[in-house]
Amino acid sequence: MTQTLFTNISQLVTPAPGAQRGEAMNDVRVVPDAALLVADGVIRWVGPRAEAPDAETAQDLGGVAVVPGLIDPHTHAVWAGDRLADFEARISGVPYEDILARGGGIRSSMRATAAASVEELVTLARPRLAALRASGATTAEVKSGYGMDFDAEIRMLRAVRALQAEFQLVPTLLIHVPPTGGRAEYVRAVCHDLIPAVAREGLAAAVDVFTEREAFTVEETRVILRAAQGHGLQAKLHADQFHAIGGTELACELGALSVDHLEASGPAQIAALAASDTVATILPGVTLHLGLPAAPGRALIDAGAAVAVGTDLNPGSSPVFSTQLALAFAVRLCRLTPAEALTACTVNAAAALGLADRGALAPGQRADFLTLRGADWRDLPYTLGASPVRSVYVAGRAL
Amino acid sequence: MTQTLFTNISQLVTPAPGAQRGEAMNDVRVVPDAALLVADGVIRWVGPRAEAPDAETAQDLGGVAVVPGLIDPHTHAVWAGDRLADFEARISGVPYEDILARGGGIRSSMRATAAASVEELVTLARPRLAALRASGATTAEVKSGYGMDFDAEIRMLRAVRALQAEFQLVPTLLIHVPPTGGRAEYVRAVCHDLIPAVAREGLAAAVDVFTEREAFTVEETRVILRAAQGHGLQAKLHADQFHAIGGTELACELGALSVDHLEASGPAQIAALAASDTVATILPGVTLHLGLPAAPGRALIDAGAAVAVGTDLNPGSSPVFSTQLALAFAVRLCRLTPAEALTACTVNAAAALGLADRGALAPGQRADFLTLRGADWRDLPYTLGASPVRSVYVAGRAL
Ligand SMILES: [Zn+2]
Ligand SMILES: [Zn+2]
Repeated sequence: MTQTLFTNISQLVTPAPGAQRGEAMNDVRVVPDAALLVADGVIRWVGPRAEAPDAETAQDLGGVAVVPGLIDPHTHAVWAGDRLADFEARISGVPYEDILARGGGIRSSMRATAAASVEELVTLARPRLAALRASGATTAEVKSGYGMDFDAEIRMLRAVRALQAEFQLVPTLLIHVPPTGGRAEYVRAVCHDLIPAVAREGLAAAVDVFTEREAFTVEETRVILRAAQGHGLQAKLHADQFHAIGGTELACELGALSVDHLEASGPAQIAALAASDTVATILPGVTLHLGLPAAPGRALIDAGAAVAVGTDLNPGSSPVFSTQLALAFAVRLCRLTPAEALTACTVNAAAALGLADRGALAPGQRADFLTLRGADWRDLPYTLGASPVRSVYVAGRAL
Repeated sequence: MTQTLFTNISQLVTPAPGAQRGEAMNDVRVVPDAALLVADGVIRWVGPRAEAPDAETAQDLGGVAVVPGLIDPHTHAVWAGDRLADFEARISGVPYEDILARGGGIRSSMRATAAASVEELVTLARPRLAALRASGATTAEVKSGYGMDFDAEIRMLRAVRALQAEFQLVPTLLIHVPPTGGRAEYVRAVCHDLIPAVAREGLAAAVDVFTEREAFTVEETRVILRAAQGHGLQAKLHADQFHAIGGTELACELGALSVDHLEASGPAQIAALAASDTVATILPGVTLHLGLPAAPGRALIDAGAAVAVGTDLNPGSSPVFSTQLALAFAVRLCRLTPAEALTACTVNAAAALGLADRGALAPGQRADFLTLRGADWRDLPYTLGASPVRSVYVAGRAL
């Protein structure tokens, strides 16, 4: 067991371990002139350098700030094809129905993804995950959901599994787009075939459902997520993106890990989240990219909810390849303070993935951390368009 | 004279040389499977590879897209100190007057900048300019304007001159913050002392005035810019940022190169710009960072104006260290099409700096260009949070 003491840290900045809700999200600890003791990839001690214990080896971090590795709790990083023509058409004023009619939209991503092999999906996703990690994300969630059929969904999850050799990833089975007919049979097959197969192979940690007027109803979602829970998988939802049809209330009722999007959440949904342990995950990249309203991040925290932030990296609604930029957007677009945004992108994002072993710089936590380029940690939420991250450490080792 | 033929370009994409206005902003030329002939740092020929002339040497660009080097027409990249505490306070709801009262705000940047030596300013600005260049900006404008006195203004411009050894920069003398008393004497001294000294030393190509209720009046601006023009310097304005008090109309009347900001411009200002040769420079980073209204980029183009886009890189209102991200923001926040945004960040930005020798990939233009990471140039406006730029070429050479 080799111990390393990391020293010469201008500021060591961290939330407390575990999900933080309401006012506690703003309570990050800032230790000036700090040190960090790591052994076997786990943090053993954190505090002022003057009080640091002895260690076998020491590493001087050069007087810069250190924060926990970011955790991106919501990505669709595996896809094939591109949506550049859709992007250009939408910006030029072409309605989404017309984009769909000319073969664009989400179904074009589904066609291309369903036609790709696992190896092709791995090759396409690798640089995206590398970009997220370079931006500071030491752990990222990746969803399926672009498959045209169950086999394609399984191939997406196998691609995530293959990429776990290079990245710390949490895979989620996403039930995304309902079939045009035979919905009841589809939901039954999801529950009786797809979810059991995914659970048997250990291909996902959670099942997510897109609950929306144009997607799955609250009742369909309930049936699917109950099946997931019956197979030992966690529940997550895409809900309240366009209409608050009850997805958030269902998430709280089922004890879902998180409910994500929330742009259309009102006082009732905010109150439900504040009264639950379900994490409210907001996705400000979508707000910027599509020019839609922002999720009520400020109101959620003020009400006492635990808020997380993710990129929602995907080709159609959030081509955001930086978890740091999502954090920076959350401050501008959803009115989180810098400290709240750090909490949202670390311990609360971990909680949204059911992980309690990471996200904070505290004894017993994984030694996943970032050194910044400067001495003041607030460069992390402040900087737009350049990386404030100097080095990414996973399990105590610089990548 | 060594000629190099750059080949294997999936798409060569360019506006026509010179300022483009109105609908012409959307007319970018896309040459598939293209080649580019360069000699002595200047483009000699552009077209389909199959029609390329012979050349002494050839360079294979690997099947990616090529666009002109971006031009950032509005930065305040030279400053000392930081505004991180201001940022945190503002996000936490502290009013700007209180931030000023506690010693923050623009005057804190001025105090720190005025206290710095030329060498210190160079050291601080270098990584910022390197970030802009890595993002694709082969030419950038840099303004003074944080000096507490004329000597400090001159030191800022000397720092820009020193940095011209490493970067292609266009320096601007910015008359930014009026004194609390003695305004008439101040304006006289600007006209009789500062502008002549700057012109004599060749320290700036243009003089810019912040025309706003809390800054300089239209009449003061007129006097200063007339003095500038009398000394052979071009005129620029910061105008219509918060209130349309007549700065834009004055810019058009004086034949200013550009008027910048325009968030508060209405139909009269848009019509004035459409009828003039003055470039309308919009700064969407400010919109995102401060949460203020966006400039009417769409309306300006629809009316027939020539629109440029800049980062406005500065510590208080736009910590945007990427010209590519400013371009990408202009598409989302100001409703420019991808092609219009490319024109805005190339030939129109050049025109905003009085430069006609760059911004387009056409014979006679400087060989400043970018290779992208992918084969489709639309990655440039599309990508958020990662760099779509692979390599930056200045005068035909990769940096
Ligand atoms: Zn999503
Ligand atoms: Zn400015």
